[in-house]
Amino acid sequence: MADQKWRMPAGMDEWLPPAAWRLEQIRRRVLDVFHSWGYEYIEPPVVEYLDALLVGAGDDLDLQTLKVVDQRSGRLLGVRADMTPQAVRVDAHSRPCEGVQRLCYAGNLVFANPASSVDPRSQLKAGAELFGSTSLTADAEVVALMIEVLTAAEVRAPVVVLGHMAIYHSLVGELGLDERSGQSLFAAVQSKAESDIRQLVPPGPIADCLVRLPTLMGAQEVIEQARECLASVGGAAVAALDQLAELAALVRVSCPEVTVRFDLAELAGYGYHNGPVFSAYRADLGQALARGGRYDGIGGEFGRSRPATGFDVSLKALVTDAQPVSGIWAPWAVDAQRKSLDATVRHLRDSGEAVVTAITAADQPPGFCTRQLTLDAGDWVIVDLSS
Amino acid sequence: MADQKWRMPAGMDEWLPPAAWRLEQIRRRVLDVFHSWGYEYIEPPVVEYLDALLVGAGDDLDLQTLKVVDQRSGRLLGVRADMTPQAVRVDAHSRPCEGVQRLCYAGNLVFANPASSVDPRSQLKAGAELFGSTSLTADAEVVALMIEVLTAAEVRAPVVVLGHMAIYHSLVGELGLDERSGQSLFAAVQSKAESDIRQLVPPGPIADCLVRLPTLMGAQEVIEQARECLASVGGAAVAALDQLAELAALVRVSCPEVTVRFDLAELAGYGYHNGPVFSAYRADLGQALARGGRYDGIGGEFGRSRPATGFDVSLKALVTDAQPVSGIWAPWAVDAQRKSLDATVRHLRDSGEAVVTAITAADQPPGFCTRQLTLDAGDWVIVDLSS
Repeated sequence: MADQKWRMPAGMDEWLPPAAWRLEQIRRRVLDVFHSWGYEYIEPPVVEYLDALLVGAGDDLDLQTLKVVDQRSGRLLGVRADMTPQAVRVDAHSRPCEGVQRLCYAGNLVFANPASSVDPRSQLKAGAELFGSTSLTADAEVVALMIEVLTAAEVRAPVVVLGHMAIYHSLVGELGLDERSGQSLFAAVQSKAESDIRQLVPPGPIADCLVRLPTLMGAQEVIEQARECLASVGGAAVAALDQLAELAALVRVSCPEVTVRFDLAELAGYGYHNGPVFSAYRADLGQALARGGRYDGIGGEFGRSRPATGFDVSLKALVTDAQPVSGIWAPWAVDAQRKSLDATVRHLRDSGEAVVTAITAADQPPGFCTRQLTLDAGDWVIVDLSS
Repeated sequence: MADQKWRMPAGMDEWLPPAAWRLEQIRRRVLDVFHSWGYEYIEPPVVEYLDALLVGAGDDLDLQTLKVVDQRSGRLLGVRADMTPQAVRVDAHSRPCEGVQRLCYAGNLVFANPASSVDPRSQLKAGAELFGSTSLTADAEVVALMIEVLTAAEVRAPVVVLGHMAIYHSLVGELGLDERSGQSLFAAVQSKAESDIRQLVPPGPIADCLVRLPTLMGAQEVIEQARECLASVGGAAVAALDQLAELAALVRVSCPEVTVRFDLAELAGYGYHNGPVFSAYRADLGQALARGGRYDGIGGEFGRSRPATGFDVSLKALVTDAQPVSGIWAPWAVDAQRKSLDATVRHLRDSGEAVVTAITAADQPPGFCTRQLTLDAGDWVIVDLSS
C-alpha cells in the first residue's frame, strides 16, 4: 500500500477526459442560467474558519467538515462541505443591501464522513440563493430556477418533490421532548417505524399525525390527506400545509411540464432549513440531483438576520454521457509550409477547434484526433485521419 | 473576536460581484485556449492523500500543504497547494498512454504558510502539462501557450523570463556539499550575497561562476556573458546554457511580439523542476502571473517515469478591472401582461441578458439593473431604468 502513491481515498474522485470536459461545460451552462436570471456570482474560499462554515448548521454538517488547526491563527479551519453559509455571510456582512439580493456560486466541497464508502467525498456543486424576501413567490422563483438548470443540463422530465419543515417541527414542538428523545423521534419518522413513534409520543392526535406523516408522499391527493389528518391538531402545521399547497400551485403555473410530488416526512439533510423545502430527481435515479429550501434568519449569526431561500445542484451527477472531443492533428512542417500551417492552426483554434501540433517530425497524433491537416495543392485542408 | 463569525483568515479571499464574474470569464477563456491547443481537461479532487500531493516536491510544498488525519483511513490527507503532481498521477497511472499526452486543469489551491501575511492563501490556478517529450520544442510549445493564455486574458506586452535549473545544479553538484551547506548556498545565491557564497565555496572557477550567477539577468547579452563565465567549468552547465539559448530562439520565432529575458539564478519556487524554467510577468507587476518548466521523471513515484514540462497561471492575478453587469429589471405583472412578460424575459435570458423579475408588486430593482422592461403599445420594450 505505502508505495502505491497513486491511490486516492475511497470516494475522492478524479475526473478524466472526456467526462471532465463535459463536467466543465455543464458547470458553465448552469452558471450561465444563474447569470441570466440575475443571480450575481461570488467565489468564496475552499477553506476558512470553522465557525463561519457551520453557521446555522446542525451536527450533520459539523461531522462532514474536515478540520485542521491554522498554524497562523491557532484557530480551527474547515474545508467546506456546504457553500450556503458562505453566501449567507456575503449577504449579511460582506455585501449587505436593502431589499432582495440574489447570489450564486459553484465550487468544490469535501465530505469528511460520507454515509457510505461509495458516496462521493469530493463534490462539485453550484447553487443559487435569494435573500430578503419572505414571499412564497421567492421560493417559487428558486424552484423554477432549479428546474431551468436541470433542463439546461438536459435532464429529461425532472420530478420536483416539495415538503415543509414546519409541519413536522410544529407537531413535535408541542410535545416538549428533550434533545435525545427528539433525535430518536426524528430517526423513527425518517425510518417510518410506527412502533417506535408510538413508544416516544403519548397517545393522541399528535401521535396519530406523526405515524401518518411518513405515508404522506405522492401527488396532489397528499395535500388533502394531510389536511384531514392535521385538522385535529390545527395551528402552525396547517398553516405550513397551506403554504406548501400554494407553492405547488405557483410551481405548476411557472413550470407546467414538471411533475410535482410531495413528501411530508423527508427531513434528512435539511440542516438549517425552516420553511418549504424542495428537491429534484431524474425519473430513473433515486438520489436527488438538486435540493434546497427556505432558511430564514441564519444570517443573524453573521450580524444580520434575513429571510432566505435557495438550492444547490450536484454538477457531477448531471454528467450522464461525454462524447470524446474530435481533435485535429497538425503534422510537422518546416519553412514556408510551417508558416502557412501556423496560420491555419491559429484560425481553427480561434473558431473553437482543438488542434494538436506535432512537436517533432516523429510525433504521432493522440487518440482523440479524428482529423488531420494535410497539404492539398498548396492549401492546408482538413481530412479524416484514417485517409 | 470570537463572535465575529464573518471574519476570514488573513489571506483567504472572498470574491464578490462584479469581480467574481470577471474571474469566471477569465477562467473560461484560459481553459478554452488550453482546449483549442488540444490539452485535455482533468478535474482532480481538492483533498487527497498527502504523499500523492507531495510527489516530486521539496520541503516548500510540504510546508504549504494543510494536513488533516482522514477519519476513514487513518492516513494523512492534504489540501492541495499545487495541481501538477495530480496531473502527473493521471499521466503515470490513471490514463497512461504512449507518446505525448497533453493535460490541463483549473482549481482552487490553499496555502498553509504563505510567505507574508498579505500573500493570497486561497488561489485559483489553471495549468497545462505536456508529458512524453524530451524535445525543447515541447518546452517552446508550453511557453507559447503560456503567452497565448495571458494574451487571451488581455495582459498587454507580457515579459517572459527564462532560466535553467541545471546551470546552478551542475555547478553545485561538483562541490559535493552536505545538505545543510547546500541549503545555505542556495539561500546565498537567491539573496545575491557574494561574501556568503565565497565563504561556502572554495576559491576557484566554480566559486567565481556562483558569485557571477545572480548578476546574469537581462536580455540576450546574458547568454554571451554566461558562456564566457561558464567556459572555465564547462560540461553540463554549458549544455544547459545552450538549451536555454535554443529555447529562447524557438520562443522568439513563435511569439515575435514578446519580450524575452533571462535570469540564471532565479530558482526559488521551482521545487521539482530540473530543466528549462520560465515565468511570465506583466510589465507593471513584480509578481509572476504564470510560471513553469521542465520536470522530467517525477512520475516515477507513481510507477511511470516520463519527461514532462508545463506551467500554471494565477487566475485571480489576471483580473484587473471588472465592469458591472448591466441587468434588466422585469417589473411585477399579472394576467395577460404576465404571460407576455414571461415570454419576453425568457427570450432575453436565452440571448444572454441578465434579467431580474420582481417577486412581489412592491419589489425594487437591484443596483446592477440599468434597464427595465416596460409596456409600450402592448409590447414589452427595454428602456433605461432612469426613464
